[in-house]
Amino acid sequence: MTAIDSIDNGVNVQALLEAREVLKGSPEAAQFTWRASTRWENGVHTTTTVKDYFGLGAEQSHKTESVLTADHPEVFAAEDHGITPIEYLLVGLASCLTAGVASVAQNRGIQLRSVEATVEGAHDIRGILGADTDVRNGFNGVKVTFNIDADASKEDIEALVAQSQKRSAVFDALTNPTDVTVEVAP
Amino acid sequence: MTAIDSIDNGVNVQALLEAREVLKGSPEAAQFTWRASTRWENGVHTTTTVKDYFGLGAEQSHKTESVLTADHPEVFAAEDHGITPIEYLLVGLASCLTAGVASVAQNRGIQLRSVEATVEGAHDIRGILGADTDVRNGFNGVKVTFNIDADASKEDIEALVAQSQKRSAVFDALTNPTDVTVEVAP
Repeated sequence: MTAIDSIDNGVNVQALLEAREVLKGSPEAAQFTWRASTRWENGVHTTTTVKDYFGLGAEQSHKTESVLTADHPEVFAAEDHGITPIEYLLVGLASCLTAGVASVAQNRGIQLRSVEATVEGAHDIRGILGADTDVRNGFNGVKVTFNIDADASKEDIEALVAQSQKRSAVFDALTNPTDVTVEVAP
Repeated sequence: MTAIDSIDNGVNVQALLEAREVLKGSPEAAQFTWRASTRWENGVHTTTTVKDYFGLGAEQSHKTESVLTADHPEVFAAEDHGITPIEYLLVGLASCLTAGVASVAQNRGIQLRSVEATVEGAHDIRGILGADTDVRNGFNGVKVTFNIDADASKEDIEALVAQSQKRSAVFDALTNPTDVTVEVAP
């Protein structure tokens, strides 16, 4: 057993590297569709369920259905049954970058002991309230800060984070525009 | 009591309209900071907590702390302890647009009976796997479809959805670029 074999961050990098090779030759299998379904409860309180998705050419399911609650806080004259919709973007961003750090560390033979990411999104709510049309509705900026304890130098840890950012689905989705179509069912 | 007084979608529109007027004159109170904190569990499995935020010039807290689990599915050689990070973006998008529909309907005197939004995000996973550098990491496109039962014409319902989209924080965050800074704590 070599030193790198003893590194275990719990990521099956071998399977991912094999998947990469397979999907190079079969791009149709790489086309995933992620889905969510939201039900209005009352006020701005909603319940969203996530279970099924499409990928590898077939319908797939998560092991269990996830149910996510969103609402506005009491300072917005709402009931605060759950986090706000825009906070879900921060959950996605920090979890994506953290998963990437674990994957890249496994691939580079770096043993992680702990990883924590804190994320802050600056939001001028005059946009969504229509108080100033020059203010955008979304975040003015987002900052993610990692605290990582690992068998690696500061430089190697910074390189892990940089590579995670480079491959992150959510980092891309927030920093670059995506076409979003919204329609009413016929 | 007029007809419009009898409309109740559970949204306190009067409070929101008053907040809009107040914040026009005190932009500093409109500066919110939303926060999340992510802990690496094992593999690509993470746990994110959301509780505190800043707004109206002071530290604020949600009534309860929310704990959100993210993971990758078994088809990615992971353990599927929860939804994927990129699915959290769909949760945020559909819940934001649905909350907006309820708010706009209240403001326009339209009684809602039910609102459901289904959202699909197309994702070519060759990007995140590094199988093709021409493929982006995030969504190739997102589609939201509303089913709304309300005391209103098809045209009025379509106008509700259009106005919700126009004021949506998450719609803006996904369709337009945001500056995201990622760093390692000193």
